[in-house]
Amino acid sequence: MNSEKLNQWVVDTFEKNGQIGNELDNVSSDDRESINFLLNYLVSAGFVKSEKIGTRINYVVQDLDKIKEFLGLNKKTEIISSLQDSTVINLPLSMHEKLISLKKNYSDLNIIELKDVFKKLLNSASDEVLIASPFIEIDGIAYILDELIDSASRGVSFKILTRDVLVKKSYNNTHTKKIKAVLKLYELFDQYQSNPNAFMEIRDFGEEVSDSHLNKLHYEGIHQKLMIVDKKYAYVGSGEIRSPSFLSNGESGYLTTGRQAEFWYDFFDIFWSNSKPVSKDFSFTL
Amino acid sequence: MNSEKLNQWVVDTFEKNGQIGNELDNVSSDDRESINFLLNYLVSAGFVKSEKIGTRINYVVQDLDKIKEFLGLNKKTEIISSLQDSTVINLPLSMHEKLISLKKNYSDLNIIELKDVFKKLLNSASDEVLIASPFIEIDGIAYILDELIDSASRGVSFKILTRDVLVKKSYNNTHTKKIKAVLKLYELFDQYQSNPNAFMEIRDFGEEVSDSHLNKLHYEGIHQKLMIVDKKYAYVGSGEIRSPSFLSNGESGYLTTGRQAEFWYDFFDIFWSNSKPVSKDFSFTL
Repeated sequence: MNSEKLNQWVVDTFEKNGQIGNELDNVSSDDRESINFLLNYLVSAGFVKSEKIGTRINYVVQDLDKIKEFLGLNKKTEIISSLQDSTVINLPLSMHEKLISLKKNYSDLNIIELKDVFKKLLNSASDEVLIASPFIEIDGIAYILDELIDSASRGVSFKILTRDVLVKKSYNNTHTKKIKAVLKLYELFDQYQSNPNAFMEIRDFGEEVSDSHLNKLHYEGIHQKLMIVDKKYAYVGSGEIRSPSFLSNGESGYLTTGRQAEFWYDFFDIFWSNSKPVSKDFSFTL
Repeated sequence: MNSEKLNQWVVDTFEKNGQIGNELDNVSSDDRESINFLLNYLVSAGFVKSEKIGTRINYVVQDLDKIKEFLGLNKKTEIISSLQDSTVINLPLSMHEKLISLKKNYSDLNIIELKDVFKKLLNSASDEVLIASPFIEIDGIAYILDELIDSASRGVSFKILTRDVLVKKSYNNTHTKKIKAVLKLYELFDQYQSNPNAFMEIRDFGEEVSDSHLNKLHYEGIHQKLMIVDKKYAYVGSGEIRSPSFLSNGESGYLTTGRQAEFWYDFFDIFWSNSKPVSKDFSFTL
């Protein structure tokens, strides 16, 4: 299930049964993991209570309206609206009510949440999407899955720049998550793309620089987080395509347009033209 | 030695001896590490050649003018100049020449390097500096040491927000580096501050959220990178106070003023008022 379907499943099940417990036995283990993640968030927000029954946990709904509001099931129309220079943030779920007061006190600044920026950007794309995401994860892709699929179906091309895919750095778990994300992106694009001239290419910029004796000197890599659409709009900030960036971390950045977007396009290209392609079957060589 | 003195030592030694080898025996092991780091960069940039003599490495100068230019030993006056809305980047050293063409092609956008933004911000502070830096490191502090000391001597207060200091997360090495950084900041402030009403406070926002049965649910933490000065100027972006952000990573962000800076001040405060103080002797309790 994609993230929208998962959210709907949680709301529907709470509406029908008032709780989620044994109901999880009927979903796939991947979906179960995502649903548990979401349920635990709802518990910490106080919208759901967890009860231990033997070794199992039962999730009992406390405030279904707040859950619907939080999951933004009615926000679709807002998300398709036009793009302008905006201030981009994410607040951890436990601070969700602060978001409302920030938006009210700074209504002149176009405060917008990170996940909505990515959705808006993808929805507005007609030609190409450039993404720089050093620590991309499949859990993050789930949040923008529909928008990725829609843009691939419309014939949009993708250049995705990450790091440490071809050469594994220290963090094992992160590396596995990144490979899953890369493979999923290629798979989705192949499945949904309609335009034979459109393409998805994923590249790796992250490498040890050595001296003439092949001694390792230092590591160079991308750390910038960018999403640039049609050379017209650019997101720049601390958050990227990972679920913590959308849910549990504080993040800050900007959505920019015009000349600024052109600059970030050229900045991206410097790294892109110095990076190594990640082929679709790269994982067999690891 | 602070970073400026280290740079000067390297230039002076190259000027005198044309190389750096045995000369390193007379510097402290901390300084030696920083100097080696710098020398290796200069090798990869082609300004210095490394030769192996037995088990030792000798660094032979190739282009002293380029080294002086890169180390920016004559840039002091530029750094003190005034602050305005700017586009902030860092490029890895191997792409240094691209910086010049980007600045030329986008001279209308005030392109500025990350380390210069931090220096300018600290130099302009008269009242208080707020810093959000989730992965702060002592190597990064070295780059802005003089400016930190100067602002502390002028009576500026500091609120520094980081994460995972009080509770160690998975990355051992990172944790040690962060503790060193926190202790060094407190030590520097105590040593140089002149105003009895000024203060430095370091806090930690990063915690596991648990349910009513004390089951761990998820992790919430800061991930935003911010430096806000006198509620008038704010840096927002992907880079923070770590040497990779200043030297070997690609980074992007913005320096903003006015209403935007006020917003980021309030955004910072939401996290600050929910964070835990890190006392000066916290490391004894670890």
